[in-house]
Formats: sequence, C-alpha cells, structure tokens
Amino acid sequence: MGSKYVYFFGGGETEGRAEMKNLLGGKGANLCEMDHLRIPVPPGFVITTDVCTYYYKNGKKFPSGLETEIRNAMQRCEKMMGTKFGDKSNPFLVSVRSGARASMPGMMETVLNLGLNPVTVEGIIAKTKNPRFGYDLYRRFIQMFSAVVMNIENEHFNRRMDKMKEERGVHLDTELNANDLKQLAEDYKAIYRQHIGENFPEDPWKQLHAAVGAVFESWNKKKARDYRKINNIPDWWGTAVNVCSMVYGNMGDDCATGVAFTRDPSTGDKRFFGEWLKNAQGEDVVAGIRTPQPINESSRNHGDTTLPTLEKEMPKCYAELERIYKRLELHYKDMQDIEFTIQNQKLWMLQTRNGKRTAPAAIRIAVDLVNENIIDRRTAVKRVDPDQLDQLLHPMFDDKEKKVKIAKGINASPGAAVGQAVFTAEDAVEWKAKGKKVILVRLETSPEDVAGMHAAEGILTARGGKTSHAAVVARGMGKCCVCGAGEVNVDEHGKKFTVQRADGQTVTVKQGDFISLDGSKGEVYEGKVLMKDSEILQVLKGQLKAQDSRIYQYYDQFMKWADGLRTLKVRTNADTPEDSRVARLFGAQGIGLCRTEHMFFETERIKHIRMMIVANTVEERKDALRSLINYQREDFIGIFREMAGLPVTIRLLDPPLHEFLPHEDSQIAELAKDLKIPADELKRKVVQLGESNPMLGHRGCRLGIVYPEITETQARAIFEAAAKLKKEGVEVLPEVMVPLVGTVEELSHQKNTINAIAELVMREQNVEFDYMVGTMIEVPRAALTAGEIAGEAEFFSFGTNDLTQMTFGYSRDDAGKFLPFYVDAKILPGDPFQSLDQTGVGALMKMAVAAGRTTRKGLKCGICGEHGGDPSSVKFCHTINLDYVSCSPYRVPIARLAAAQAAVESSGDSSAKKNSAQVSKKHAVQKNKVRSDAMPAKAKKPAAKKAAAKKPAAKKAVKKAAPKKAAAKKPAAKKAAPKKKVAAKKKK
Amino acid sequence: MGSKYVYFFGGGETEGRAEMKNLLGGKGANLCEMDHLRIPVPPGFVITTDVCTYYYKNGKKFPSGLETEIRNAMQRCEKMMGTKFGDKSNPFLVSVRSGARASMPGMMETVLNLGLNPVTVEGIIAKTKNPRFGYDLYRRFIQMFSAVVMNIENEHFNRRMDKMKEERGVHLDTELNANDLKQLAEDYKAIYRQHIGENFPEDPWKQLHAAVGAVFESWNKKKARDYRKINNIPDWWGTAVNVCSMVYGNMGDDCATGVAFTRDPSTGDKRFFGEWLKNAQGEDVVAGIRTPQPINESSRNHGDTTLPTLEKEMPKCYAELERIYKRLELHYKDMQDIEFTIQNQKLWMLQTRNGKRTAPAAIRIAVDLVNENIIDRRTAVKRVDPDQLDQLLHPMFDDKEKKVKIAKGINASPGAAVGQAVFTAEDAVEWKAKGKKVILVRLETSPEDVAGMHAAEGILTARGGKTSHAAVVARGMGKCCVCGAGEVNVDEHGKKFTVQRADGQTVTVKQGDFISLDGSKGEVYEGKVLMKDSEILQVLKGQLKAQDSRIYQYYDQFMKWADGLRTLKVRTNADTPEDSRVARLFGAQGIGLCRTEHMFFETERIKHIRMMIVANTVEERKDALRSLINYQREDFIGIFREMAGLPVTIRLLDPPLHEFLPHEDSQIAELAKDLKIPADELKRKVVQLGESNPMLGHRGCRLGIVYPEITETQARAIFEAAAKLKKEGVEVLPEVMVPLVGTVEELSHQKNTINAIAELVMREQNVEFDYMVGTMIEVPRAALTAGEIAGEAEFFSFGTNDLTQMTFGYSRDDAGKFLPFYVDAKILPGDPFQSLDQTGVGALMKMAVAAGRTTRKGLKCGICGEHGGDPSSVKFCHTINLDYVSCSPYRVPIARLAAAQAAVESSGDSSAKKNSAQVSKKHAVQKNKVRSDAMPAKAKKPAAKKAAAKKPAAKKAVKKAAPKKAAAKKPAAKKAAPKKKVAAKKKK
Repeated sequence: MGSKYVYFFGGGETEGRAEMKNLLGGKGANLCEMDHLRIPVPPGFVITTDVCTYYYKNGKKFPSGLETEIRNAMQRCEKMMGTKFGDKSNPFLVSVRSGARASMPGMMETVLNLGLNPVTVEGIIAKTKNPRFGYDLYRRFIQMFSAVVMNIENEHFNRRMDKMKEERGVHLDTELNANDLKQLAEDYKAIYRQHIGENFPEDPWKQLHAAVGAVFESWNKKKARDYRKINNIPDWWGTAVNVCSMVYGNMGDDCATGVAFTRDPSTGDKRFFGEWLKNAQGEDVVAGIRTPQPINESSRNHGDTTLPTLEKEMPKCYAELERIYKRLELHYKDMQDIEFTIQNQKLWMLQTRNGKRTAPAAIRIAVDLVNENIIDRRTAVKRVDPDQLDQLLHPMFDDKEKKVKIAKGINASPGAAVGQAVFTAEDAVEWKAKGKKVILVRLETSPEDVAGMHAAEGILTARGGKTSHAAVVARGMGKCCVCGAGEVNVDEHGKKFTVQRADGQTVTVKQGDFISLDGSKGEVYEGKVLMKDSEILQVLKGQLKAQDSRIYQYYDQFMKWADGLRTLKVRTNADTPEDSRVARLFGAQGIGLCRTEHMFFETERIKHIRMMIVANTVEERKDALRSLINYQREDFIGIFREMAGLPVTIRLLDPPLHEFLPHEDSQIAELAKDLKIPADELKRKVVQLGESNPMLGHRGCRLGIVYPEITETQARAIFEAAAKLKKEGVEVLPEVMVPLVGTVEELSHQKNTINAIAELVMREQNVEFDYMVGTMIEVPRAALTAGEIAGEAEFFSFGTNDLTQMTFGYSRDDAGKFLPFYVDAKILPGDPFQSLDQTGVGALMKMAVAAGRTTRKGLKCGICGEHGGDPSSVKFCHTINLDYVSCSPYRVPIARLAAAQAAVESSGDSSAKKNSAQVSKKHAVQKNKVRSDAMPAKAKKPAAKKAAAKKPAAKKAVKKAAPKKAAAKKPAAKKAAPKKKVAAKKKK
Repeated sequence: MGSKYVYFFGGGETEGRAEMKNLLGGKGANLCEMDHLRIPVPPGFVITTDVCTYYYKNGKKFPSGLETEIRNAMQRCEKMMGTKFGDKSNPFLVSVRSGARASMPGMMETVLNLGLNPVTVEGIIAKTKNPRFGYDLYRRFIQMFSAVVMNIENEHFNRRMDKMKEERGVHLDTELNANDLKQLAEDYKAIYRQHIGENFPEDPWKQLHAAVGAVFESWNKKKARDYRKINNIPDWWGTAVNVCSMVYGNMGDDCATGVAFTRDPSTGDKRFFGEWLKNAQGEDVVAGIRTPQPINESSRNHGDTTLPTLEKEMPKCYAELERIYKRLELHYKDMQDIEFTIQNQKLWMLQTRNGKRTAPAAIRIAVDLVNENIIDRRTAVKRVDPDQLDQLLHPMFDDKEKKVKIAKGINASPGAAVGQAVFTAEDAVEWKAKGKKVILVRLETSPEDVAGMHAAEGILTARGGKTSHAAVVARGMGKCCVCGAGEVNVDEHGKKFTVQRADGQTVTVKQGDFISLDGSKGEVYEGKVLMKDSEILQVLKGQLKAQDSRIYQYYDQFMKWADGLRTLKVRTNADTPEDSRVARLFGAQGIGLCRTEHMFFETERIKHIRMMIVANTVEERKDALRSLINYQREDFIGIFREMAGLPVTIRLLDPPLHEFLPHEDSQIAELAKDLKIPADELKRKVVQLGESNPMLGHRGCRLGIVYPEITETQARAIFEAAAKLKKEGVEVLPEVMVPLVGTVEELSHQKNTINAIAELVMREQNVEFDYMVGTMIEVPRAALTAGEIAGEAEFFSFGTNDLTQMTFGYSRDDAGKFLPFYVDAKILPGDPFQSLDQTGVGALMKMAVAAGRTTRKGLKCGICGEHGGDPSSVKFCHTINLDYVSCSPYRVPIARLAAAQAAVESSGDSSAKKNSAQVSKKHAVQKNKVRSDAMPAKAKKPAAKKAAAKKPAAKKAVKKAAPKKAAAKKPAAKKAAPKKKVAAKKKK
C-alpha cells in the first residue's frame, strides 16, 4: 500500500483527481475533481481504500501514521472553514461517509454532524442563534452515531421520539421545540448508556475514529455483500471514507438540498431533471419521507402543477447550479447524477457521479453525446451495458389487450412485467427459486430489499419519487418499476394491498395474485396482461415504421456503430423457422446451433422416434427412421430458407434415447398399445435404456456410432433439404455438427458416414452444394486433444454447457443442492452456467482453439453454449479469438454489443484524452459508413428475403455476410476452406 | 517404405538379422539370425511387413518390383537345394508362413508343400521312390491351399477322407495306400472346382502368389484381430511372409519333427524340455492329434514311462539339437521355444523364439540367467510381465479342503480357478459380461477360442499336450489351464461333459455347474473348492518357512532387484486393517487411499449414518455423527497400527448421501420404523436426495462444505486415532485427503476445518502429531487449476477413475452400452478405465503435476485410481514423475515390478551390447545391496511390527520409507514439507 493515507480537497487545493477512483472511491475522487475544477465543495478529505484493506488484513486496526494525516487534514479544513473541531464557540462539524470504487447506493453507512457534544452544541447555537437547530442536530447525531457506529436499533430512538410527540400533543418532529429536542438528546444518551454500558462519547476525536471504523465495518455487512454479489463487485476492493465539512440545507428557509440528473435518466431526453426540498437535510429527499419538489418545470411529475421549483424560489442558486451541471457533464462527458446543498443561499456541491439510467436512456444519451461532439463512437458503444438491452427487446404489453388499471404511479424504470405479488424481499427470493415470476410490492424499498428486487420481475412501491431507492436500483438492474403509487395501500405484514379502482370498487391483491406493471407508463393492472413484440421488433418486422419509433432510431444508429466496431460474429441458437426469422431480424449472422431433437417431440413424430428406439433390428430401426426423414427434411428447408446465404450449424441427435420414452407404467402401457408391442417388452426396453448418469451415458455421437443409421438419416434430411433449395437458387450453407466427440476416431467415423450420404444425395439429386462437417467441443478430452480432432473437424463449436458440467463435475440438474451455497460462501464467484468460468473451462477453450488452429490454419471456432449470450463470456470469446458466438434470438443484439465492446476494449482504451482528439475529427468519422459486411441484411422482410436469392444486387449483400465460397473451386485452398463438392472429389 | 522387399536366408548367406523384427517379423528375423549363426535352416526368404502395409494401403496390390525379388530369391534357394520350382524331375517345394513382429501363435495362415502339381508330384515320387509319400503330400497341399487360400471349409475334404476310409475299411489315414491318396487328390481337386468354379491352379508361381496374398489376408481375419486386441498388438504392424524350402519329417522312419523349450516353461527348471513325433509333419505335434513323445527323459509327462525319446532313438540328431539349443539360449540370452525337423537324419531348425512361460518360470529363468552370468539385473527385471505375477499372488486351493477330484490332465498353466462350466467361447464372453466367473471347457481349443479363453477364469481341454494351443495361449495369458484330460467326454453341442470318477460313478457337468481347476497339479474338482493364501503370501505371513518355498525364494530375490531399481513408491488402497496387513506384506509403502464410506455400511453404523442423513437440523446431524465417531476412530486406530511408520491417506466421505438410503418402499418403511420417523417423511427425503446424475452431484467435498460437521467428525476420528497411537509411541502419518475438489476455495474451506480440528485434538489430548492435508485431483478443473490448488494442497492424489469419467464424459455405470463397441471398432485402443488414457487424461495429469510443483516445490503426487495397479499406467506415472502409485493389496507386487521396469526403460535401454558389458561387472553389481529405503520392512509379522515403534533399530528402518519428518521443526523449510504442529503455529 502507498504511504499516503489521506487526500485533502477544498478551496481548489485538492490532492486527488477523478481517475484515482480505485484509491479514493467514486465519491471521494469526484469531490476532489470538483474541487480541482473550482466547483464549490465543502472542504474535507478522503481516507483511502488501501486503509480499508489494511484494516481487514490486520485484525481491524488502522495503520500507524493515519492519525497524524487525519489531524493535518482536519486542521486544513478548520482553517478554510474558520472553525475548530470540538471548539466551544465556533465548532467544526463533519460528515463521515463511505465511498467505494463503484457506487453502492445506500449500502454503507454515513454519520452526519459529527463533532457535537454538550459543549460544541452550545457553540452552534450561539453561532446560528437557533437553539432548536442546534438541539435538532445534536439529537440526530446521537441517534445516527448510536445506530450506525454502535448498532443500536433505530426503533429505540424512534419510540422515544414518538413518546415525546405524544407527551407534547404534536404530530410532526418540526412541531417540537428546542427544549423538547434538548430533552430528547439527553434521553437518547440514556438509551445509549443502557445498550452499551458506557456514556456516549463526548470527545470529537473518539467520535471520528469510531465513525471511520464503522464505515469500514459497513463494507462487510450483509446488505453490502448482497449488493456486491448481484453487481459483481469484488470484496477485496474495500471502501474509502469521506470526511467532509458539514453544510446545512436545514438551517432555515434560505437553505435547501436536492439531487438532480443532467439528463432524464428514464428517457435520455436532454433536460436538466431533479428534485429538491427547502430547509431539509439531503437524506430527506432520497428516503422519500417528504414528497420532493421539482427543481424546474421540466422536472414536474405527472399530475403535479403546484409544487414550487428551485428555479423560481432560488433563481440565483439555480443559475449557478445550471452552470455547474453543464460544466460537469462536459468535463465527465457523461450524464451526471449530482447532489447539492444550499446553506444560507450558498450552493455547495456534495457529489457528482455518472448517473444510472434505463436502456433507452443509455442508448439515447450515448448517441446524443456523439452527435453533440462530446464523445466518439468507440466511447459511445462502451456506455451501454449489453444486458440492459434486454428490456428494449423483450415483449411489452399490447395496447389492444383488455387491461384493468388499478393504480398509477411514477414511471420509474421502463418495461413490462407480469408476476405474482409478494410483499417481502425474502418471499421474492424464495418464490423465484421455485421457478415463479413475482412482482415485489413494498411501501418503499430499502437496501435490505435489493436481493428481493433482483429476484422480482418488477417492483411496485407506494412511496418515493424517481430518485427514490426503488427507482434508482431498479433502473440499475434494468427492472421494470412503478414507484410512488400512493393509492396503493400496502399491508406488508398482511401480505396484501388494497386499492380503489376507477370504477370505485376496492380491489384486494393478496400474495400470489397476479398483477402486471407497465414501467414506461407507471401503470398497474389486475391479473396477467398479454404481451406483444417490443417496439424495436415491431419495426424490424415491418409492423411499425422506423420514423414512428424514436427508440428504434436511436437503437438502430447505436447498433450500427457497434457492428462497425466488432470483429466477432453473432449467430443464433434456433430450432425452428420462426426463431430463425426473429434472430435474423435481430442481426444474427447465421445459426450456430440448430438442435434436431426438439423437432422430434411433436405428436406424430415422437411415435416414429419411439418406434426407432424400441426396434430390435437394424431394419426395423431404418423403417422407423425413413418415416422421420420427411418431417426432418421439411424442418431444414424452412430453416435454410430463413437463413438464405448464412451458415446453419445443425447438431446431430444428442440426448440419450430414453429421453424420448415415457417412464410411468400407465404411459408405457398406452404407448405399447400404439406401437403394437407387449407392454412388458416395452417396459423392459425402458428399464434397459435407463442410465445411472444419463449426462455421461449413451448419447451424442455415441448414438450415431452404435447406430450409424441415425446419422445417415439425419444427414440425408439435411442434404436433401440443401439440394432442394440449391435447385431453387437459394444459397444454403449447412454445417453438420457431430456432438459429444471425445476422440478423433469418433469424428472420423461420423464424418465418413456424413460424407458418403452427401455424395449420394448430390448424385441422386444431380446438384452440388457446399457443406462442412465439424464438431462440438464439449467433452474435456476433446479440448485436450483438439489438435488431433482438428485433423478431421472443419469447424469447432464450444458446447460450454456440457463442457462446464464435465470440467467442474457438476450436473446442472443436481447442482441446485450446492451451487447456491457455493456462490453465497464465495467458493465460486458466480454460477458457472451463467457466466463462463474463464479460469478452468476458459483455459480448456483457449488450449483447444490454439491446438486446433495449429493443425488446421484458420479453423472456424464458435461457441453455442448459453454463455454465448452472456456479455462477459462474449468478451472472453473475443479475447481467445473465436469467430463467432451463438445465442438465443432475443440475446443477439446483446451479444453484438458485447462483441463491439470487447473489440474496443482489446484495441486499447479510448481514454479521455484520446477521446477529445477523436471527437475533433468527428465529421470524418461520421462519413465512414458502417461496414456492410459486419452488418447482416437483418431488417429484410420475409418477402424481400425470398427475393434476395434471385436479385443479384441483394444477393451480393447477403453473400458478404456468408463465408467465402470461391475456395471450393480452388483445390489449393481446400484445407483452409474445407468445403466439398462431388466434382472436386471426382477429380482425384 | 524401403526399396528392398525380400530378404534371403540360407547357407549362411542371409541378408537379415534378429534385430530386424519390425521389418521381417519374429519368425523371419530369427531364421535369418540362425542362418547367420550357421545353424542349419532350410534356405528361404522373407517378404517384409512393409509389403503387407503396402498391400492394404493400395487396394490389396503388391508393389512392382516384388515379383523380380521373389524370383531372384527363389533361384538362390533352388541353387542351394539343387532343385527347381515346378521341375518335373527334381522339384523345389516351399512352405509359405506368416510371421508378425510379435508372436501370434496359430492366428495366421500357413501353406505347406507349395509347388506341387501333377507333374512335380511325379518328380517327388521318382526322387523319394515313395509314391505314397508323394500323393500324401499332394492331397495335403490341395486341401491346405483350398482351405487357407480359397476359404473352402476343411470339412468338405475331411468328409471325403472319411468316406475313402470307409470304402477301404480302414480306420487311420496311414492305412490308405498310394492309389487311395492319388484318388483323394483328384477328388479334392473336384471339390475345389465345385466351390471355386475353376480348376485347381497347377502353375507353381500362381500358387505362390496366391499363398502370399492369403497370408496377408489372414492378418485381418477375426481371430487375428481378436488376438491383437487382447494382446495390444497394433493393426498397422502387418505381417511378414516367410517362404522356406520344404524339409520333411514325414519321409520315413529316419525323419521326425518336434518342438522344444530350452528350459521348462511351467516351472523355469533348467532342463531341456520338448516333444517330438517320428515320421510326422510339424503341425501334428502342435495340433495335439497324435500324442507326442518326450524328446528326453526329463520331458516325460506324469504317468508315461514308455514312450521312446528322441535322445534314445536318434542320438546323433539329439546331440546336435542340444548343441544348437545351448548356442541359441546363450545367443538370445533367454529361454527359447524351438521347432525342428529331421529329414533323413539331417536336422533342420525351423524356428526359434523367446518362449512363453508361466510367472514362476519367468521369475526363475530371469534369476537363473543372472546367476549364470548371462544377463544383468536390469534385463532380468524386464523379463517378467508384471501382470503375470498375479497368478503367483492370488489365493490357491487349500489342500486341507475336501475336494472331489473328477479328472486329471496335464498341468499346462498353473494357478487355481473356480467357475461355472461353459462350452463355447461365445458363452464364456457373454457370461463374463454378466459378471459370472466361468471355466471354458473344450475338446481342444483353436485360435477362434481366444476371446473366450480371455474371459474365462481357467481352461480345461480333453485333448492336447503342454505345447497345445490351449496350453501355450493360457500360459501367455497367465490363466490356469488343465489340458489333455482324456477321461473327460466333452459334448460341446450338448453343453456338458461326463467323466468317470475314481469311485466308478459317472458325473455329468452341465453348463452353469461349478467346477474347480488346479493348473499346477492338472486336476479337476467338482463344485467350488475353497482357496487359501498363495504360497508366497503364506511365507510372508510366516505360515510357511521361506526355505521350504522355492517359488518364494526366487520371487524374493527377483523383487529385491526390482525394488533396487525403481524410484516410484507403491502404496495400497485399503479400507481395513486386514487389507492393510496383506498389502504391507506385499510391500506396500503406505496407504494411498483409505475410503471411509465403506466403513459405514456395517449394520450398526449404517443406522447412524442414516440418522445423520435424515436429520433436519445441524444439531440432529451432529448427534448422529457423534455416535459414528467411536466406530470411525477404532477403524483408523487399526489401520494406523498396521501401517506404523508409513503414510496413510484417508479420503473424506465421497459418495452422495442417497447411496446410504434404501430405495424400495418396503425397506423405507422398515427404516422409518427404526429411525422413529414417519415413512412419508423418509420417503420424501429419499426422493429429495435423489439425483439425475449422482456422479456429478452432491458428493465429495461438496458434502463437507454444505455440512461442515461431517468433515469435522471425520477429522476428529482421524486425529483422535493419531493422538492415541502417538501416545503409545507408534509413528502415525495421516494424510487427510479432500475429494472432488474443483476450485482452490473448496480446498481452503475444508482445510481450515480440518486444521482447526487437528489443533483442537492436539490440545485436548496434549500430544503433537504430524499430518498433511491434500486433495484428490479427479475433476478436470482441478487439474486445469492445479497451480492454484497447490497453494493449499500439501499433496495431490490423482483419482483417475473419476478423472477418466469426467474427461471422457463416460459414466462407468453406463458406458457398457457403447464402450465394448468402441473398443471393437477401434474408436478406442482399449478400455480407458483399465489402462490410463495417456493422451487425454494423461495430459491433464502431466499438466497438473507440473503446475502443482511450480507452486509448491517437491509437491508429493500420487495416483489412487484403479490404474495404479495397471503396469502400463504405472509406467506412465513414472514418466510424469509421480512419487507413488497406489493399488489394491494383491497388485502391489505387480506395481512394484512395473515401476522397476519403468525406471530401467527410462534410464536407457540395456541393449545386448550394454548387457554383456554390465554382466562382466556382475560381482561388483551383486555386492551393491538392495537399497533399504526403496524396500519397505514388508516381511515383518504383526508382532514384530508393533515392536518396531519401540526398538530404535527397527524404527529407523521404518522411518526411511516414511516422508522426512525433521522439516516440521525447521520453519524455513515449511513450505516444502508442509507438516504442522500446534507448537509451530503458536510461535507465529
């Protein structure tokens, strides 16, 4: 650790900067930066995160030398503020706040007004001539210190306060007078004594040390750990501590406090947007206890026309605030979330940070900032969290559907959500674990609710505005949220809420009842409301015009930039023509995984596959397979048509055969009747096919090797489909993928079979078509012997689901018994089935890509496990030089963006300096059109697509996205581009 | 391939040598070598194995140029023999035989007397003045050529022969006269025409080419492929073809043929041992059709006192044979298996090769050859196949047991076998696959039976002598064999045999009836005869004096040499004190795997473990575990005592908990009653614990992490046992092994728990003991992240059973559905659960050892999967620098020998030249005593062992074998030798 523990800021003399976030935490670094910019911040200092690390590594002790540095910094503050810590006439008071590298809103502790004691409180009173103010601060400080530093529960103090109000016959805290508050302070100290067994500490220095320790302690409290887990923040980062001169928004009516966003965090609109309260401390705005007022006209909530704005009430301060926010946004080149306090008409900035925002806002802000010449495209692309896109792409409520609106609140975070109402965070987590979709309904949320919010589809609160905890956290999570729906009477204990409908009827929603939330409109509906395509998909499908959708326009521009930057291709996992179509509209550049087994489960088909399974002879089996071939051929024709000009990877039959058979006696009897065989015999077959560990059993290519007729049938269906379309002039690029290969011999065996069928079909149909034969790399041994396997494989596709199962030795079906425990206990950083284990599974992948390409130069490598749609896994795939990732249709844009970010990140950081240089060349940059080959012809409608194969111009566009084709004609290039033609073979 | 296809031999002009075996095959190379030594061999030539490879690679065509080389070689032969191929007055006849690199007795084809046709047969008759001889050769040749080259079944010819004998009213072939045989030859040609549709080829050159092709073809026949599979002979080796001048042992009474071993292949006794027949062709001796005669007095079988010996009948030839065999043995420095023919009193050597032998013979011959100054120890150690030792170590029949002898045959291959009688090779394979132990009973065996012999525990034949097919193959396999039990009437079709017992009663043994074979005595018993310890184990246990066991003495000497050479230690897998004792007697240097779960299955204990499993709270679970601790502690005390001074690796609970619960409803009900809980509840628990893939489920350290109290209990039992023995003065070296680790965090978690308990027990018991905490490497991810894991692990032990399952993705329980098919189809070279997959699994191991030792210098690495007892896997473990292998007690000596061979092989080949140099230093070498530290104090009796801890001298010996202990006292050395003491910890 460095030898400097404390960084001063104030009066432009700061020792820190914004880029020192790792050391100073986000809040501290930004306070320093503001000071550097000569923006007014109350003087203070930051105790570094290194001290926190030291604290935990050394039995919760502070490093020696810290004390001196703190004292020096305190002296500088005192000098600047003209006050003195512990002084009886002009006392210096401070706030002590946490501040980690990443924002963890409300997760850690804060102590305000520190430095107060019976002596200094009199100094404050003397100075402000306001005894009520002094004693109010004092009783607040005692409670806060007791709760935060000493862990005495707040309710003890609140009860005393309630009793006092009762005694005085008043309803509001503000109605208590100075003496009442003085008495309360004394009573609070008694509560402290009672719980701790000692007197409340009067020495300001002792108070300060205790508070600093408490901030460090709060780093490890459950709610903070939960938040970090959800947000992937490492435990070892630690928090910094910000000690800051107190300024007061609650010193009188020339005082105020507020929070604001430099642009609208829900929509991204370029308007200054915030809330404030007169004569209040900052926490009052965020906590949602008092209804906050708009800072300007454009910040007004729906329905409110009367609440006075800061702009009107304190025009001078507002004007300064405006100057400052503009300066900050330009300086940070991003939308800022700011906090301020006005003390006696003087504006102090308490915080600035990059504001959390919804997906549409993120996209819009990024695009606008580029257009405003503030950032370049590379930076813009990094500004949107790929996972966030999800809310833009998924279905939304259909306006035409009948909806019974039961409440309206604030549209705090957009999206649509349908689920069963639950009323505690614990219930949300528990129900979700059982596979249920829930809406978390709370009076208001607090940091304790974060895990429950994460588990919920959406969040509904009765209290709080757009900057309330619920709103901020939900936006961060990309969850739909309606907040401040005041009509909703939430009974958290009774686990229900009641609300009066427009028609006057009172509706009661109990735990488990379905409700639907529209986060974009802030509306709540009874029951399950049906969904329709997202606006973007509607445009892509041609059901809505692009010019009528602002979201689409920004999305389209943004994604074009992303596609222009990325090198990793994105394909989709799709088993049907419908999925293929949606995926292609979302920009898929082919199919990376088409699973054939799903095609067999339809009623008519499963009968044939069952006949195939129970067959006793090769002939019986072939008969059953012959019946299946027509179905299967039609499936492939549909898919190939949708993917005209793009590669389609088809995996041969993978699951163990018993998965197709029934296991209950009654079902077996029924099936036996259908198949006209004795039930006994069928039962015996079912038992015989049963496996102890089906995951490691007779499946994948092990089926095709023991029963080659299965592979033959599937290959025939694929190639007959290819032949048919080829004759129609549609370009088909089938890639036949052999699953579960562990030895090169397995692949050779299957490849020989497939090649023989291809040759046969080409002769029968008198047509030539290109195809490839490759393999899944999903068995560890395949990765370990990838060099050998690449001798046969024309492509690799990492099946990271199975590869993860086998590399860890975890059965996905069974890991539920220990995986959650493992993640909780930090034995694993996360669920390796969600985000790729880069250390173990990733090492195998890296090894395999390298060995494979040593054997076969330019070997095409992709990933088709579910990790292909996980942004951090996509980035890993970029770093190990995969050619493509493949994911579910709705995740295709997410993967495209993640791939673009990976490209930007790996080609060097576009830091602030670089940015400005690039921005000045803006016009040149913008003239570079998005490269057409990186962008598939995605917005084409089905009709247009069919035509593509015929129109030469359109065909060319399609071709660019597809693998190059000429190779098949040049024998010399054959190894690198392993396409086959019968003609080429015959030449030998 | 080389440009020379044909290598000539004869008259000392040979172009080949013994070391050209790969090119010339074993037989051919040795014929050349004998010619080089001027030992009389009939002139001939070898067509190389390269030609075979060419043949298969080029659509079964011969290379151009081969024809010319053959013609040239034929000319040289003709010149030497003074005859001419196809000549009408002095025709040259040849034999055409196969000859691969490795001996494949009887597996491939031979054609004799080639060159005969209506013209040349008259030449032979004229020359020998023996028409009967001439036509006998001719009809034999026609049949052999038809059968071997043209695949016409022999029975067509045999039926014709039987009809002829009937017509002539005779019983024996020899009673037919020249005309009869001439007629037969004509009739045989008619059979040929009938089957092939052409005339029998008269052109000798055409005959020759067809015969050469037939030999190549025979390389790929099923029986040959089966033999190669069993004996791990690669398919690509191919066979050579030996074309050799015919010499005749059947030209009259001054002719003979025979086979002999230069030492006794059953016992290793140094005596010339063989069988011969007067006036016969070589095949007659081996086929067992005529009862062969002893070549000398010492070769006489039990009971025979009258058959005339070669020594008596042809003393001159015998004397020459004696000179030759001695020369050959000295030249090849090994026991030889030779074939000879005497034609008109002239001795010709037809073959020499290293003779197959039983395990006792192999050991004895190796030791004797060292003592005779012929080979050195390094060579001797390589002369015994480690797997062969099995027959020496496994239990044998107890003489004291009641046995009902039903037959006596020839003691062809020693050992004892008990099993159910089966009568076909197919049945043997099938029954074995079902887990049954079978004895294969045949009239006589043929190469088609090899797979069945492999599947059987032992082989019983009614016909054939010690050199019959059954005897030779059984010895090669180390299988017990009784052959030539003439009293046994085998009804192969009826699947039974009858035999007259000594008491006159006729016994019928049907398929499935149990019989017992004593291969050392050649006796057959009714039913299952109980076994007792092998002679060697009896000596080791002190029940038999070493001086009374010749086998033991040789074994002991041989194993001392082996131990003196090896560097790899050998431990055992043992779960009980009994197994530990046997293993230690067999030389185990500690326990590499003590599985704790087996200890829980005893009636009293399983109840407690079940209570632990169904517990609903940690407290209930702890209660149940408390009851188990006493049992478990006693188990460990027993094992530690047996292994005093040696390390004992104890694996913590590994299997999923549901393995301990019943699954049938009735059993569940019963257990519920026992446990005093509702059956419903228990049933629910059983279902809840069930897993889709238990292999990849909640087991191994995943149990100990979710239920730390399980690990705590086991650690407590281990350490309390250690503490108790330590107090008694017994040296204990527990190594606690955490199973199924996949991430370093898992190991840290368990290690912390274990260390805490160790510290606690040391304090409670006021005693210090050494221990280590390490892990199984059995999950691929553990191998991939071994560098990290070694940061915590104090040792690695490769659990190659699971590692193989996960690396291949094969469930051992289910792989039966495809593994046999895979091995048959050569998709796998063999069962990877039997012999380690060095390419895939081995690569992971190698990686892990290297990474582990980079993190922790000198990290102790071992293997405890079943591969630890497989010789080729043991050798691999040596090459990747493991410290030890661990295997089942009875395989410990096998592993010791394999380890010694690995050491010899890796330290450079002790080739012939090197050998002689070393042999000359023999006395010096012999003075080097076997290093005491490589040889554990294994022959110690339990009493002596207990004393060991007390007697300082004995203790020292024990200590050398154990890991060094001083390290724990030197803090600086702690990382390298990570022992712990509470004292050392406290110092920190």
